[in-house]
Amino acid sequence: MSSSHDLSVTVVGLGPMGRALAGAFLAAGVRTTVWNRTPGRDGELVAAGAVPAASAEEAVAASPLTVVCLVNYDATDSVLRQEAVTRALKGRTVVNLSADTPERARDTAAWADAQGIGYLDGAIMTPTPTIGTPTGVFLHSGPEPLYREHRPVLDALGGGHTHLGEEISRAAAYDIALLDIFWTSMTGYVHALAVARAEGISPTELAPFAAGIGAILPPLFQELAEDVESGSYSGEANPLTSAVSTMAHIVHASEAHGIEAGVMRAAEGLARRTVGLGHGAEGFTRLVEVLGRR
Amino acid sequence: MSSSHDLSVTVVGLGPMGRALAGAFLAAGVRTTVWNRTPGRDGELVAAGAVPAASAEEAVAASPLTVVCLVNYDATDSVLRQEAVTRALKGRTVVNLSADTPERARDTAAWADAQGIGYLDGAIMTPTPTIGTPTGVFLHSGPEPLYREHRPVLDALGGGHTHLGEEISRAAAYDIALLDIFWTSMTGYVHALAVARAEGISPTELAPFAAGIGAILPPLFQELAEDVESGSYSGEANPLTSAVSTMAHIVHASEAHGIEAGVMRAAEGLARRTVGLGHGAEGFTRLVEVLGRR
Ligand SMILES: NC(=O)c1ccc[n+]([C@@H]2O[C@H](COP(=O)([O-])OP(=O)(O)OC[C@H]3O[C@@H](n4cnc5c(N)ncnc54)[C@H](OP(=O)(O)O)[C@@H]3O)[C@@H](O)[C@H]2O)c1
Ligand SMILES: NC(=O)c1ccc[n+]([C@@H]2O[C@H](COP(=O)([O-])OP(=O)(O)OC[C@H]3O[C@@H](n4cnc5c(N)ncnc54)[C@H](OP(=O)(O)O)[C@@H]3O)[C@@H](O)[C@H]2O)c1
Repeated sequence: MSSSHDLSVTVVGLGPMGRALAGAFLAAGVRTTVWNRTPGRDGELVAAGAVPAASAEEAVAASPLTVVCLVNYDATDSVLRQEAVTRALKGRTVVNLSADTPERARDTAAWADAQGIGYLDGAIMTPTPTIGTPTGVFLHSGPEPLYREHRPVLDALGGGHTHLGEEISRAAAYDIALLDIFWTSMTGYVHALAVARAEGISPTELAPFAAGIGAILPPLFQELAEDVESGSYSGEANPLTSAVSTMAHIVHASEAHGIEAGVMRAAEGLARRTVGLGHGAEGFTRLVEVLGRR
Repeated sequence: MSSSHDLSVTVVGLGPMGRALAGAFLAAGVRTTVWNRTPGRDGELVAAGAVPAASAEEAVAASPLTVVCLVNYDATDSVLRQEAVTRALKGRTVVNLSADTPERARDTAAWADAQGIGYLDGAIMTPTPTIGTPTGVFLHSGPEPLYREHRPVLDALGGGHTHLGEEISRAAAYDIALLDIFWTSMTGYVHALAVARAEGISPTELAPFAAGIGAILPPLFQELAEDVESGSYSGEANPLTSAVSTMAHIVHASEAHGIEAGVMRAAEGLARRTVGLGHGAEGFTRLVEVLGRR
């Protein structure tokens, strides 16, 4: 077995997440080359031993594996699909940890295939401080042998790595669904902070109770997934009619303070439409069917 | 000190939550009288020792304390503001654990005061299975002496009870803010389940990862509350421009499957407006200020 000191990697993209990835590689003793569109983001990394590349083509030529971490796949394309970069990548592998849609993952894989570039797609599900620690969560998809080949480098990032299968869009599909939960919840939280403040409740007064609500979610998510999978949509413990009543209170209290309630208005509308379709005595999970119906 | 066997309580409202409350009182040995608008909901409770009342006025006359748990304050008014019920409540105390707005809590307190009825307002922040266990979370507001007087009965419900102060609307204000987080997050989850399913990911495949996202939230809520309170709105680890990019992917991937994305569209719009106001390099918490601005 090779030690991580024989390993090398290139990191393209030095935003907060790219810097965290490169930092973790360096800490694990992986030879790390770095590049970013805007210069000057690599100072701390170079001080920690990273090799700065003068261009994207020089960067990707330095290692068998390039980890890309940019804002999205428009950015990815604008870097990787430059002729000199594409040429330098031939016979090498890209792991794209940038977030985008399943469609873009498929498109990038087709391009890479046509160019003779190995391609794995991935997603990072945890914030920057988790990178290089056991709590990081990484999802991957694409050719199993390629994944196995580069797993030792990826392992240097710490955390849990799950290969979701050979279908290249799988990681992006999970990413979209999980970020849907994350950003919707975050929007609910900032809205709650605004409403609370208007009611004279400070953010840190609300926070411990908000954390309590957050703590209810993980077991509930598990339980409700089984409810949806079995198609039972039970409203026995909490009927949809009770939920819509509460949602209306939130809209009312928010707007009475002049605080926009567009997100909750949309959520309430969806829930009321589900009640209108005859599901008022069922559970909130019934919304899954209404959202998905053709 | 009195044992709970000297205590008695009336529960008005036998929906899922009212039944859970009455069940917990009975299990703790509190003499419990029950009433519900629609008859026939008290079968199991009566078998467990509850006293069924033939009318709402008979119910509230049976105990010094009546716990009300109905869908909202329209329902509460339609029961308590009947002349015979109001008369029977004179000199007694109501704890209203129904959910509604701070405004309705104030209105109900004013009515109770005019009628010579003691009034406490409250909110239950955890689902029915937590009632009677240490994990239940109850918030209360209203006159401190009245709260102290009835605390022994409330304690029979188990869980944690917090008196938020004498201002009667305080429990409802917390309730609104916390339910804002809860129902927004739940809406994100059902939407994620619908999108995942369209991508060939089953609810129980997504669930463990969804639970992982849920587990990130409690510490993040605490951290972000401090960020908002200090007014720093740091985007160093995750700039708003990165978030809006991801939100757009979610809308796109959802609508490409014919799945309505109204909630995320509203959330993205709010985030983009915040970027447009010049806050793109700041953190997501900046939305609190944009929501609250006049
Ligand atoms: N931060 C987190 O907590 C977190 C967590 C999980 C996943 N992620 C994902 O990780 C990826 C990177 O995120 P991030 O936090 O580092 O910040 P980000 O703002 O999403 O991405 C910044 C990076 O994108 C580059 N970039 C933007 N537009 C470009 C273009 N047109 N051409 C070339 N490069 C371009 C930036 O280069 P310049 O410096 O030149 O602008 C920088 O390297 C995103 O897909 C994000 O969703 C982030
Ligand atoms: N279930 C939970 O997990 C949970 C958690 C926290 C807080 N809560 C709160 O607890 C309260 C009760 O919730 P719940 O789960 O028991 O179900 P719910 O559906 O919110 O309330 C059902 C109760 O409201 C009564 N009701 C509805 N309209 C009425 C009217 N016009 N006049 C008189 N009574 C009326 C019902 O009587 P009928 O049987 O005659 O219709 C029943 O007793 C709500 O405010 C809810 O937000 C519930």
